[in-house]
Amino acid sequence: MNPTPVAIIGVGRMGANMARRLHEQHVPVTAVYDLRPEAARSLADELGCMAASTPAAATAKANIVLTVVTDDLAMRQLFQAQALLHEAAGKVFINCATVSPELHREVEALVEAVGAFSMEACMASSIPQAREGSLYLMCGGRKEVFERVAPLLQILSKTCRYIGPAGNAAQVKALVNMVMNINTAGLAEGLGLGQSLGLDLTMLREVFSETGAASRVLQTDGEDMQNREHSCFFSAAHAAKDSGIALNLARQHQLTLPLAEATLHQYQRMMDLGLGELDKSGIAELTFHDRSPRSA
Amino acid sequence: MNPTPVAIIGVGRMGANMARRLHEQHVPVTAVYDLRPEAARSLADELGCMAASTPAAATAKANIVLTVVTDDLAMRQLFQAQALLHEAAGKVFINCATVSPELHREVEALVEAVGAFSMEACMASSIPQAREGSLYLMCGGRKEVFERVAPLLQILSKTCRYIGPAGNAAQVKALVNMVMNINTAGLAEGLGLGQSLGLDLTMLREVFSETGAASRVLQTDGEDMQNREHSCFFSAAHAAKDSGIALNLARQHQLTLPLAEATLHQYQRMMDLGLGELDKSGIAELTFHDRSPRSA
Repeated sequence: MNPTPVAIIGVGRMGANMARRLHEQHVPVTAVYDLRPEAARSLADELGCMAASTPAAATAKANIVLTVVTDDLAMRQLFQAQALLHEAAGKVFINCATVSPELHREVEALVEAVGAFSMEACMASSIPQAREGSLYLMCGGRKEVFERVAPLLQILSKTCRYIGPAGNAAQVKALVNMVMNINTAGLAEGLGLGQSLGLDLTMLREVFSETGAASRVLQTDGEDMQNREHSCFFSAAHAAKDSGIALNLARQHQLTLPLAEATLHQYQRMMDLGLGELDKSGIAELTFHDRSPRSA
Repeated sequence: MNPTPVAIIGVGRMGANMARRLHEQHVPVTAVYDLRPEAARSLADELGCMAASTPAAATAKANIVLTVVTDDLAMRQLFQAQALLHEAAGKVFINCATVSPELHREVEALVEAVGAFSMEACMASSIPQAREGSLYLMCGGRKEVFERVAPLLQILSKTCRYIGPAGNAAQVKALVNMVMNINTAGLAEGLGLGQSLGLDLTMLREVFSETGAASRVLQTDGEDMQNREHSCFFSAAHAAKDSGIALNLARQHQLTLPLAEATLHQYQRMMDLGLGELDKSGIAELTFHDRSPRSA
């Protein structure tokens, strides 16, 4: 087991469940920080650790710092604040948020300038997997840093894969989610049309699962689309964010991706309709004839 | 084993391989017909049966007639010709072509008017499965007719599923292929962008297969997209046809399906570029930056 003290910055549902998993596996979680002090306090009480008042105070308590923040802006603010890196030499920052590939490279440069280390650990899984330690982690950064933190990351994951230099894992994650979102939007169209045709959707999903229409999202989201069960594991707003990251990369490389664009447009429609906090399966609310998005 | 004599009308690659499978399994294939006499002659020589000069002549030799024609037009011409049904009372027509749901209902009415029977048996598989008797068959029509022909269809299939009344199987097949085509077009975008980003596509496909981006088409078409191996199992032109059938159904039900539309548009672009006879995986030729569709 890894005796290195760990701090966690950003304890939303993902970060908090990663903290619980580490604690349960006897990894010393010494401090947690969140922009919402009550969230940090509540988790600190649960785990018996410090609720740090600043990111720097959390970092001071640990050798490895997991950051699980919301987006590029939050990540940039975190690492550009002078205090965080002031006494960080030798520490390793493992960054689990879905942020742009460029930002992972920026963060690596900032962190290395003070003699610390960084690793991107992009997650292609959701809250239950964080709690159970069965995340799918894609790691980007220096290989020697990866080897150093791999034992810790393996406690959190069922698969922990080294992808390449900083930024590459975020690229792969953006591609995974872009394709996943396309498959999700397409599945919603198939089931929505099936409903309009009066077909038995349970039969239809079974046929899909046995044919060229089969997909992982059919397994994870098909029944939820049928039953309008859109409790959030991966929100429509997150789906829009990730498809947007991929489409920005595509534009930088002069690629036109009409399916990805149509998918982003659908998830943006959900947000416009106030449905952005539904699970991504909620996209079926747009494609079923008898569902009124405004009343969902 | 089924001793009922069988005739096959339409012996393109699918029909011919179904005939070979039946013959090999000791089903008496007594006659074959094709609009191209040399195709019928060659297969008849191979199987030692009659190369019929008309569909009616083939039908006269059999109790069960498998029709495997190209499209709605061919199917309508076949069944509206008076001669075919002239002495067809008691015979069963099993229609395997991908045609519109309405046409299956029309054919059922025409066939029943002369005391014959019909069954739609839509195939969600391709040429190797036809040869091996491992087709996925979706059947529409009267349940009692299905039960009568099921033993024969099971020789051709690994799954033979009764879907509902005539036309329903074609609807389900259109939905299967619509979703499959969307997933295929989306996968091509993901791999194409990965290539532009300089990622290792073998690694990327492996990550896709382990995450929410996984799909049946990733297994069947991913490597082919990477290697530009577009030998035809299911052509782009067929993909366009099937997505078009589904979108017609959607329009009839006032549904807008933006992913299906974007996909149809991509497959139509392939046809405009003269790539319609490539396999559906050839859609990657449109999304990889270093591939020029005009030279492919």
